[in-house]
Amino acid sequence: MMTRTRESDIRVAVSTVILTLRRAPVEELPSLALPMVLRTRDPHQGDWALPGGWLEPDENLEDAAARTLHETTGLSPSYLEQLYAFGAVDRSPGRVISIVYWALVRSDEVDAQSAAHVASGLAPENVQWFDAATLPALAFDHNQIIDYALWRLRNKVGYSRVAHGFLPPTFTLADLREAYEAILGKRLDPANFRRQVETSATLLPTDEFRTGSHRPARLYRYNNAVELADRGPLAVDEKRTR
Amino acid sequence: MMTRTRESDIRVAVSTVILTLRRAPVEELPSLALPMVLRTRDPHQGDWALPGGWLEPDENLEDAAARTLHETTGLSPSYLEQLYAFGAVDRSPGRVISIVYWALVRSDEVDAQSAAHVASGLAPENVQWFDAATLPALAFDHNQIIDYALWRLRNKVGYSRVAHGFLPPTFTLADLREAYEAILGKRLDPANFRRQVETSATLLPTDEFRTGSHRPARLYRYNNAVELADRGPLAVDEKRTR
Repeated sequence: MMTRTRESDIRVAVSTVILTLRRAPVEELPSLALPMVLRTRDPHQGDWALPGGWLEPDENLEDAAARTLHETTGLSPSYLEQLYAFGAVDRSPGRVISIVYWALVRSDEVDAQSAAHVASGLAPENVQWFDAATLPALAFDHNQIIDYALWRLRNKVGYSRVAHGFLPPTFTLADLREAYEAILGKRLDPANFRRQVETSATLLPTDEFRTGSHRPARLYRYNNAVELADRGPLAVDEKRTR
Repeated sequence: MMTRTRESDIRVAVSTVILTLRRAPVEELPSLALPMVLRTRDPHQGDWALPGGWLEPDENLEDAAARTLHETTGLSPSYLEQLYAFGAVDRSPGRVISIVYWALVRSDEVDAQSAAHVASGLAPENVQWFDAATLPALAFDHNQIIDYALWRLRNKVGYSRVAHGFLPPTFTLADLREAYEAILGKRLDPANFRRQVETSATLLPTDEFRTGSHRPARLYRYNNAVELADRGPLAVDEKRTR
């Protein structure tokens, strides 16, 4: 017979998967990178883990994810989305339910926020960015959590503007294709990609061009009039309270 | 400054949104229905609430959802999917995180399981099925939870075989259209619907027909070779343990 213990023996934590796009030399695929935090105490001392921490009793879930992410890495994405609640009995020595959030951030935002974090004197040596495709064995079930996040991202890229999270307000079609290539882990044919995007009506051309070593490339922006998958009822009711 | 209390002041519950299809006379739209349980104690005594209960420390999340659903309603869907973790600070008098699961069940399964529940002598008077479109004010944030579930279902029907959950292994195109109409809350043109389904390759015709008062209608089944949105990595790692 199952021994009934108190519900209060269960603890609630939050963790966050922060993904950014890592540019690569022309011959290589762009990739996704994410920050991990070195664990300085047991369990799993010396292993890398997702940024996170305990939920406070008077703190909303997304607030806790934003707070613990900022405390450990200095990062403050404008928007966090709930990914999944991981709660297998054996995932931690004590019973811990981890509510995991995720966000996509632009690499220039990462650079600026990380520099500010270092300048503020907080311990940057415990934070390191890893290529999502070549992670070491992480603490707890965090490899599984990241596998799930990457799978959701690959699925979602087909029916939402999720790749937008990696891009500035205006971008070239090559920028967008690079984001898709990193998410899907494969090269896409530039001409086919252009055709698909142009027929989807999700992008609007601007009158601006990016110039540089190549021929000028037109800048596009997302067409906000096209309603894609968004947060629905949660957008209003679960917004961050601070 | 925030008063820090122990993480163990936070309790974890599970709830489940069980949706089924309710047929309607020809002139009316089919609708979605779900079971609610009458609360017999405070908070919210006398209000209707989603089936659910406390998570046990040695119980996986989906197991807890299946157990509490069965204890209260007698229902045992073959598959529960995690919907979302609701954790706003003010959603309950004490701090309660509710991990919500959902499932779609066929009305004939509901009828058989409900009858068995009643025959076993368990209290059926505290369970009632409601039309999802005309719910009363429910306990806690359960109206919001159901709004979110319905919104996710409407979104999901466009890119997955989710409507399958309402249907037996073989079904007519009219059956499938009826499921879509209930989910989307609007009539669909039968000829357009047939064309869209036939070009999507997600259905396979069988050699069987349903006969009755109308002209014989061909039975179809889902084409399992077409990979649509599924659970990905979670299908293996978070399966139910009993």
